[in-house]
Amino acid sequence: MSDRTKPRKPKPSSSSPPPSPTIALTLKMARRSLLKPTLATAFLSLLFLYALFHTLLTPSPSPSPSAAIGLSPSPPSAPKIYLYGLPSKFTYGVVRSYLRARGSPVPANDADIRYPGHQHSAEWWLLSDLARPPTARSPNSPLRLTLDPDEADLFYVPFFSSLSLVVNPIRPGGSDIPGGGGGGSMAYSDEGTQEELVEWLEGQEYWRRNRGRDHVIVCQDPNALYRVIDRVRNAVLLVSDFGRLRADQASLIKDVILPYSHRINSYKRDVGVEGRHSLLFFMGNRYRKEGGKVRDTLFQILEDEKDVVIKHGTQSRESRRMATQGMHSSKFCLHPAGDTPSACRLFDAIVSLCIPVIVSDYIELPFEDVINYKKIAIFVDTISAVKPGYLVSKIRKVSNERILQYQQELKMVKWYFEYEDPNGTVNEIWRQVSSKVPLIKLMINRDKRLVQRGHDPDCSCICSKQNGTISIRK
Amino acid sequence: MSDRTKPRKPKPSSSSPPPSPTIALTLKMARRSLLKPTLATAFLSLLFLYALFHTLLTPSPSPSPSAAIGLSPSPPSAPKIYLYGLPSKFTYGVVRSYLRARGSPVPANDADIRYPGHQHSAEWWLLSDLARPPTARSPNSPLRLTLDPDEADLFYVPFFSSLSLVVNPIRPGGSDIPGGGGGGSMAYSDEGTQEELVEWLEGQEYWRRNRGRDHVIVCQDPNALYRVIDRVRNAVLLVSDFGRLRADQASLIKDVILPYSHRINSYKRDVGVEGRHSLLFFMGNRYRKEGGKVRDTLFQILEDEKDVVIKHGTQSRESRRMATQGMHSSKFCLHPAGDTPSACRLFDAIVSLCIPVIVSDYIELPFEDVINYKKIAIFVDTISAVKPGYLVSKIRKVSNERILQYQQELKMVKWYFEYEDPNGTVNEIWRQVSSKVPLIKLMINRDKRLVQRGHDPDCSCICSKQNGTISIRK
Repeated sequence: MSDRTKPRKPKPSSSSPPPSPTIALTLKMARRSLLKPTLATAFLSLLFLYALFHTLLTPSPSPSPSAAIGLSPSPPSAPKIYLYGLPSKFTYGVVRSYLRARGSPVPANDADIRYPGHQHSAEWWLLSDLARPPTARSPNSPLRLTLDPDEADLFYVPFFSSLSLVVNPIRPGGSDIPGGGGGGSMAYSDEGTQEELVEWLEGQEYWRRNRGRDHVIVCQDPNALYRVIDRVRNAVLLVSDFGRLRADQASLIKDVILPYSHRINSYKRDVGVEGRHSLLFFMGNRYRKEGGKVRDTLFQILEDEKDVVIKHGTQSRESRRMATQGMHSSKFCLHPAGDTPSACRLFDAIVSLCIPVIVSDYIELPFEDVINYKKIAIFVDTISAVKPGYLVSKIRKVSNERILQYQQELKMVKWYFEYEDPNGTVNEIWRQVSSKVPLIKLMINRDKRLVQRGHDPDCSCICSKQNGTISIRK
Repeated sequence: MSDRTKPRKPKPSSSSPPPSPTIALTLKMARRSLLKPTLATAFLSLLFLYALFHTLLTPSPSPSPSAAIGLSPSPPSAPKIYLYGLPSKFTYGVVRSYLRARGSPVPANDADIRYPGHQHSAEWWLLSDLARPPTARSPNSPLRLTLDPDEADLFYVPFFSSLSLVVNPIRPGGSDIPGGGGGGSMAYSDEGTQEELVEWLEGQEYWRRNRGRDHVIVCQDPNALYRVIDRVRNAVLLVSDFGRLRADQASLIKDVILPYSHRINSYKRDVGVEGRHSLLFFMGNRYRKEGGKVRDTLFQILEDEKDVVIKHGTQSRESRRMATQGMHSSKFCLHPAGDTPSACRLFDAIVSLCIPVIVSDYIELPFEDVINYKKIAIFVDTISAVKPGYLVSKIRKVSNERILQYQQELKMVKWYFEYEDPNGTVNEIWRQVSSKVPLIKLMINRDKRLVQRGHDPDCSCICSKQNGTISIRK
């Protein structure tokens, strides 16, 4: 396990409810109407008291507007992020449209809106984190919040892009892209919302200045933002993988790989093989598009093996209960590709301390600088995995002692995959984002003074297992 | 100016002599012979006392061998670097060969060796910095020194690669590469030393483990390490530019651009145009190879302009005196490409508060994430620069008020170019190197588990002014 992983202990997941989503807008409002005797004034008074203590106790080496009012207890060298006060239709308004399309009650206040089950986690939790009152933010946050865009290193665009994709319920036999199309009789158009967002962004001076290079946008679903991706491709994109993105739209250099949130409960007991009677477990959709086509072959090879539990299943409360039981009582959990190289099951396996067996040749893995996945998972290339007997024979050879080692390593990293833990996933995403800042600033400054070098792109690359040569610079 | 530049004030250059170069070896020795009643024991006793105070006063959140003996006062999140105890022939032994080849006295002790005039600065000062006793290291260092390679994030290879290149005095009509060739009657072979270095490295477990990806090697001269560059290309290379390096050998992503050290004295007075009677100044070699070919054309265009001082000159004490006088009394200083896109004159201009006029289309600039060069220099593309009248007419239009702004900005960044200032260039180089760590670790972990994807390289890129598409991923 990497150096950074070692000293941190797994933290218990916070069970407190998500912070009020209205705070983002309150902060924005507070900036605009400083003297109005409103809730904002009360909030600012609290901020002032906090600032007084903060200033008295910790003299700041580099005073700045947000430091002066004690906006963040993060280290003074941490980059500053500005949260855009996006029109509500791009954030909690998307949740309202989602609820409306399902005939659910629609809260009038943002504060009463709860996390909708089908939303990808990051967009909800990242906004919640930045919208927290400063005293409630994690003292370990690798980013400082600023209310002054002029001093910001980064700009967060909190569009609920993945939820927008599924606002309209999927119709049987419907299109590949659930929220797509003009909407027909549907009231909500994902494509329309994407375009409105980009028009809004292109109207912002801070976006235009560097063509979005210092902006951070979450597009966790592989189809999120598909309509406008070429107009936002300079930004730091928070993605699940690069399955549907071209090399000029996204890359390991510029972007951040996010985990899906686990959907089954964490395994609370200690490491051990006693309760784990099955060798290998998989439950999920047997038939997938693109990257997931190998699943059917794996089913055929594995379904007759004794001590292997492999089941076709779709999302339901009952499936989830069965998956929980299966993952908590198996030594290994199969992780084939989904429609794109990633899939959420990997994270279910990790929090279950069920050693992932990854069959997905083009997978990208979250937080891979601090997590050495070879220590928590077994990788099998697809060509070998579909050879009858190969996969099962490989994992049968793993000794109990080695299994316990894998489980210990899984236990050490599992807090990285807890979106609700204030020191968990969200903090780690911000750390990943903040590590992009030096290169973002370099590229911004360099772009401004660069002499045009003809029509070829001027690119800098890093390559894995260098065998060949690249000749694209200049 | 960028956020990071603002709060820091220019620091006075340290006038103390460079620290004893033997300490690197002492530290190494200390690890090997802990109980021998030698100088090392005395040194360790001091370390222990320091550690006692350090431990009592600042409880460390992540105890580690080097933290326990208080090796570094840097923040605990700073990456750890290990200094290789290279055989002396690769470090101070190169200085000895250099002195011997010139018939100069050769000190027996490393401690008596002084910085040789022709050495590129970084290799001398980076080693000196890491070899300092812990109490003498800058408290702001972005890297922590560790004596335990197992806990190191980075490995520094302190080969004097640029000095090695010029050990043998240049013979009139000699080869392009001064230290190259088998040496003939010469006792020293640069190529031989390069090859011995790489053989030594390839014998090290920590090099082989990640094929050098977490190693840092300085090759500041564009020809340094030319013989073995393909065998060290995975490492973080500290270079002056990419003029003689292919895209698969070096890139902005992986490597760090270093400044040359200035060779004329800093301008000590305040900003102002009163003492600056010349409009534009240049003094240097009129005839250069490759990137510098445009120089002769610039000479022809500029030498008849009134208030422009442009002179052919080669290195000498007298030339340096004249250049100092010229740069200190001109508003603008011309900076054409050298043999490769970079040249040392840029840094002479910066410390002279003489606004650089950069004519070098492929130049890369050091520390460009924290320095916006558009604020301190004027860029003119080569095609325009060689149009008669264009360049001079452009800079004549710059108002005195604007010149003062440029000078103020130059004054704010000039400490970045002071190798001898403990908070200057060396610290900034380490900060640049430390910012590479997340990507280095990601690539190391990812390489280990990656499924081979055919013969094409698997690369991630970032591009400037994206016009075209890249299609090299997968």
